[in-house]
Amino acid sequence: MSPRGGPAGSAGLGGEQVEGIRAVEALLTAGRRRVRSVWLAPGRDDHARHDALERLAAANGVRVRHVDRSRLMAEARTDAPQGVLARAEPVAPADFDALLTERDAFLVALDGVTDPGNLGAILRVAGAAGATGVVIPRHRAAPLTPAAVKAAAGAVEHVPVAVVSGIPAALERAVRAEVWTVGLAAEGTTSVFELEVADRPVMLVLGAEGRGLARLTRDRCDLLAAIPLPGAVDSLNVATAAAVACFEVVRRRGATRGSG
Amino acid sequence: MSPRGGPAGSAGLGGEQVEGIRAVEALLTAGRRRVRSVWLAPGRDDHARHDALERLAAANGVRVRHVDRSRLMAEARTDAPQGVLARAEPVAPADFDALLTERDAFLVALDGVTDPGNLGAILRVAGAAGATGVVIPRHRAAPLTPAAVKAAAGAVEHVPVAVVSGIPAALERAVRAEVWTVGLAAEGTTSVFELEVADRPVMLVLGAEGRGLARLTRDRCDLLAAIPLPGAVDSLNVATAAAVACFEVVRRRGATRGSG
Repeated sequence: MSPRGGPAGSAGLGGEQVEGIRAVEALLTAGRRRVRSVWLAPGRDDHARHDALERLAAANGVRVRHVDRSRLMAEARTDAPQGVLARAEPVAPADFDALLTERDAFLVALDGVTDPGNLGAILRVAGAAGATGVVIPRHRAAPLTPAAVKAAAGAVEHVPVAVVSGIPAALERAVRAEVWTVGLAAEGTTSVFELEVADRPVMLVLGAEGRGLARLTRDRCDLLAAIPLPGAVDSLNVATAAAVACFEVVRRRGATRGSG
Repeated sequence: MSPRGGPAGSAGLGGEQVEGIRAVEALLTAGRRRVRSVWLAPGRDDHARHDALERLAAANGVRVRHVDRSRLMAEARTDAPQGVLARAEPVAPADFDALLTERDAFLVALDGVTDPGNLGAILRVAGAAGATGVVIPRHRAAPLTPAAVKAAAGAVEHVPVAVVSGIPAALERAVRAEVWTVGLAAEGTTSVFELEVADRPVMLVLGAEGRGLARLTRDRCDLLAAIPLPGAVDSLNVATAAAVACFEVVRRRGATRGSG
């Protein structure tokens, strides 16, 4: 079974409304889901990239609607859609067990991260770092809101997202699949820079900003890792913490392909 | 001369309006600038932390105004002020030359990063990573908007911010001060994970998302470093890139104090 395209009848992830140049570009180039329409409104935005989007839509047989800016903003659900909005099929959830059995599994599980901007930012980080999937609990019907999709900047087209009933149960399944589970926690006794398991199948677990990991989640992780914070500011945003941990996995796995 | 408190008459950084629990907590505990008032509005927010803020304000002789939620939201300039807002003296700029001569200088220069959320997020990252200062060009009068201050989550009280006339000229001054200048760029030939100069006096230089570093800035950096991106997503948000690079400096410098 492919990690993408979970069991029939599972709840949709949302993601039907896609706003922002980067996100719509990725939607059209990835070609993973049917695109119903693309709306473009002229403005101060990048004309060359708007033109490229229009050609891309045409090449994919997607209808382009030219609307004025106020019409687009009335439909938009993010602050800065950059004059472009698309409507598409929802994102299909991935199958968690299939993600667990991938040879180089590199998963990021979110325990109570509900802010759409953070969810989207973490998807983008995961997609850039080469994570093989993101795991979220079934808290609500459609986590991929327009704000999350925009912040993900195209990553929702590439990163498999699995929905589980709860993170503690998911951790048990990961342990049975011999995937190392690493909770990021201020009280962790291992430094994230000494993560020996990073080049084995691994699942990083991130908690809600402020509250951190839930008790049961913390107890079930194989190890708890802390990000050293030598400065006067004593906490990181959860998406920032995800970036530091994910790119430590990249560093350990010795990726050599440079980009920025 | 102290790095904080630059030359008299230099433009203010802004920062007078402080919103959000974390940012107001830091404002009151750091005690670096005079606080005129704290406004609190009851709501779904963290009551214990609101009470703590009220005691902190009282202990510092700061007037607390209890207002209703709609009154606070009318004054607020961010989406989610968490029921608290403070007014304070502007943040004083730091002196760039003083920052350059600090023994363990670890600076982050921003070349064209104008989005307030990104500026604030980078300040938070810099403050957590123990950077000794952030350097921004004099693009506009008061870069520390309420949105930037909120995103910085208190870091504006701790991280010295120097304003320079332009980043290329600042790079020349850094070179004369024997501070290594490292531009983050997709086309960089060094991996950010092979940054031998990280434990010497160093200035990381980040460009605007999309356009990247300006030509002159790129030419004047001692070296250009790329963040390896092994995944399908081919770019990072600028604040995420700052986090990966700053925490690589933390790792290299061998910080051992864990936190998360």
